[in-house]
Amino acid sequence: METDTGTRWLSEAEQRVWRTHLAVTRLLTHRLERDLQPFGLTMNDYEILVNLSESEGHRMRMSDLAAATLQSKSRLSHQITRMERAELVRRESCDSDRRGLFAVLTEHGWETMRNVAPHHVESVRRHFVDLLPPESLTTLQESLAPIARHLHDERGRSSQG
Amino acid sequence: METDTGTRWLSEAEQRVWRTHLAVTRLLTHRLERDLQPFGLTMNDYEILVNLSESEGHRMRMSDLAAATLQSKSRLSHQITRMERAELVRRESCDSDRRGLFAVLTEHGWETMRNVAPHHVESVRRHFVDLLPPESLTTLQESLAPIARHLHDERGRSSQG
Repeated sequence: METDTGTRWLSEAEQRVWRTHLAVTRLLTHRLERDLQPFGLTMNDYEILVNLSESEGHRMRMSDLAAATLQSKSRLSHQITRMERAELVRRESCDSDRRGLFAVLTEHGWETMRNVAPHHVESVRRHFVDLLPPESLTTLQESLAPIARHLHDERGRSSQG
Repeated sequence: METDTGTRWLSEAEQRVWRTHLAVTRLLTHRLERDLQPFGLTMNDYEILVNLSESEGHRMRMSDLAAATLQSKSRLSHQITRMERAELVRRESCDSDRRGLFAVLTEHGWETMRNVAPHHVESVRRHFVDLLPPESLTTLQESLAPIARHLHDERGRSSQG
């Protein structure tokens, strides 16, 4: 690749980190999706169940749920429709609140969550957390937190624009 | 969540790292996909172009390309079909080699790659690499490499099984 174009190509060390990050991202997503498959859930489904189960009254405004799960509102809406069919959640409107719909965890969704969570945590431990020695837990958080903040800020800017 | 089930729930520090990793994974994927959109490419397209452009004769056996890009052969095949329509790659069989098809970079694919690469690298720098101070580059690699190795091994095992 030419280097006379002013492009700051990645150094070997930078390229190695970047490719390792990409590999972990892709392989881990595959692996966790696969471990959830027997329960009929995707990672996105699971994340929605977690968010709702941790919210007061097991309910969240759709726009808050979209923000919490880093999805667009239209994508979340499709997903909630699929999850409604599986009777994991239901939509509810609130008379005193004109700011739109809520997603509410059903009894079946809550039971599913309680049933699946131990398996999912085991999978997250086995393929990620337990492979990090205590000092890596700290340094990884320190490396990734500024990137997460930057990306959140970028996202905030572009959704206002 | 109950703790009397024998499940080793994540500690606060573990949960924080896990959620930060998930956020970076998701937001970074969105961001990089978005930066590639003006060029009519996805991240998967780009990765295939990179692999072919770095291979001798700008060609790879389909099975090697699937392994290199961490995709299933059937998924890769669909993707190559789409990229053939865009005239970025073509399939070629080799008379002296019965082990299947090759994917070959076209002249247009090579030009596209050379055109897009500086923009993509800039995007990877801006949203990831340049946010890592030199010491993080090392510690991040040290944290992620064992996880990548573990996941590669798992993948190898399950594709034999």
